[in-house]
Amino acid sequence: MKMIPYCRDIFYYETDRMNVVSHTNYIRWMEEARTDFLRQAGMAYDQIEAEGLMIPVLEVRCQYRQSLTYGDRFAIVSRITEYNSFKMKIAYEIYNARTGTLSARASSAHCFTDSSMKPVRISKRNPTLHALFLKSMDAEYSAWDYGAE
Amino acid sequence: MKMIPYCRDIFYYETDRMNVVSHTNYIRWMEEARTDFLRQAGMAYDQIEAEGLMIPVLEVRCQYRQSLTYGDRFAIVSRITEYNSFKMKIAYEIYNARTGTLSARASSAHCFTDSSMKPVRISKRNPTLHALFLKSMDAEYSAWDYGAE
Amino acid sequence: MKMIPYCRDIFYYETDRMNVVSHTNYIRWMEEARTDFLRQAGMAYDQIEAEGLMIPVLEVRCQYRQSLTYGDRFAIVSRITEYNSFKMKIAYEIYNARTGTLSARASSAHCFTDSSMKPVRISKRNPTLHALFLKSMDAEYSAWDYGAE
Amino acid sequence: MKMIPYCRDIFYYETDRMNVVSHTNYIRWMEEARTDFLRQAGMAYDQIEAEGLMIPVLEVRCQYRQSLTYGDRFAIVSRITEYNSFKMKIAYEIYNARTGTLSARASSAHCFTDSSMKPVRISKRNPTLHALFLKSMDAEYSAWDYGAE
Repeated sequence: MKMIPYCRDIFYYETDRMNVVSHTNYIRWMEEARTDFLRQAGMAYDQIEAEGLMIPVLEVRCQYRQSLTYGDRFAIVSRITEYNSFKMKIAYEIYNARTGTLSARASSAHCFTDSSMKPVRISKRNPTLHALFLKSMDAEYSAWDYGAE
Repeated sequence: MKMIPYCRDIFYYETDRMNVVSHTNYIRWMEEARTDFLRQAGMAYDQIEAEGLMIPVLEVRCQYRQSLTYGDRFAIVSRITEYNSFKMKIAYEIYNARTGTLSARASSAHCFTDSSMKPVRISKRNPTLHALFLKSMDAEYSAWDYGAE
Repeated sequence: MKMIPYCRDIFYYETDRMNVVSHTNYIRWMEEARTDFLRQAGMAYDQIEAEGLMIPVLEVRCQYRQSLTYGDRFAIVSRITEYNSFKMKIAYEIYNARTGTLSARASSAHCFTDSSMKPVRISKRNPTLHALFLKSMDAEYSAWDYGAE
Repeated sequence: MKMIPYCRDIFYYETDRMNVVSHTNYIRWMEEARTDFLRQAGMAYDQIEAEGLMIPVLEVRCQYRQSLTYGDRFAIVSRITEYNSFKMKIAYEIYNARTGTLSARASSAHCFTDSSMKPVRISKRNPTLHALFLKSMDAEYSAWDYGAE
């Protein structure tokens, strides 16, 4: 499955007075990248919710390497590293889109629930979605969008 | 009605790379101060929502005077300046709690709706709440909490 | 000067439990739209800062009309409505990019300072920038980017 | 060293449309709790910065157990689990302050740098601070503040 990295410019309000992006925002970027990944894989999250399914976060982890700041642009490569119809794990590589430097490595773990937060098994509940999850595990990424100079 | 100004220390992640609190956070502080005011007036917002009522924001305005940064503490004095059972207006004075300097003057305008966003008349829908709104218009503020040294 | 509206999809974390975008985020979107406008006009804000200039916010105002939520996309049309080398005022129209409905009308007022927050006169301090500000007052907007279906 | 858990009410804007606190905010709460812990230990972070020292984040991790929402209050117990003058690790237990239920377990890893982001050795650079870090490893927590009814 062909994928495009999730890219955008950094917002001024995302920096803190250390003159870099607050590390707290990376967790938000992971959510942005994850929903963009799902959308590209044919599983827009608002549609998943409309079908009464939710993908809550069980765990997040982020290792910071190189800081980013206003004027920079990031590119995130997301991959589903584990999926078994009950649970899923996603790995993220967060790059400085202009320099190609790795800014952070991160991961998130998820389960699948219905709208009352009860666990569900995707293969049984929604076989089409199950097939899309399996298919999206073979993501092949194109180069990212460098953005305006 | 005796009131205590809404006070708290500024969070590091609320600053931006200009080394001051991002102006965007003042709108969030207004929401914090507003719900604290309602709680003090006997109208905790989660209970208002539990009764099927909402108080959406129609307009906000904020005039910035003196910046604040990490290490500072703010104190907000909120007053209901207009209330007529359909609509409400609140004025906020945001102070540097340590120096007493005015940091910003702000206001928000609101209406009252049911949970499907249809306008409601508080005096008819919930006379007890209506009485509390009227009573809270006479807020008399004590000195604020200066915080830890 | 040809301009493109500032558009993007709404992030999940921008919603609140009223199931709509928290009104507090519109002030952040205004900052995003403003810096995008400046960039399009040849005045990238990180370059402005690198020249020792800042454009702090003196006042913001936002009138909310129609709520937005996750799954929606916004488009913002920004215009400099006043500029006199000391101060500037910007007006924003925030639309639901899919339906074309107006979501909010907003404005922000600014002054120009050096990096120690002292007021400066742009025409004297940086005539090239002054010319760009004047030129950008004639922004003509193209249709916006509707985004992925 | 006697410590008080870091407690506060949850803000409305911290919830998302899943009707719970966005998981992204826990990373911000960890920063709030960490700076409060340092302040209680006699190491206010703004003073640490004023001495030209910074404590950047190398890694964060958070495991989510029970969601929280508006109307709830959290209490965070922080402990320095590793400290060796170059690096530090902090563990956080995040509780629902009203019920005592564990909401999340988290940790963050840090190094110490000067203001140009060069690593420093605290024991050499600031022996007083070094002594305070060592002392704060024996934190004994009192019961937390349950908050307003």
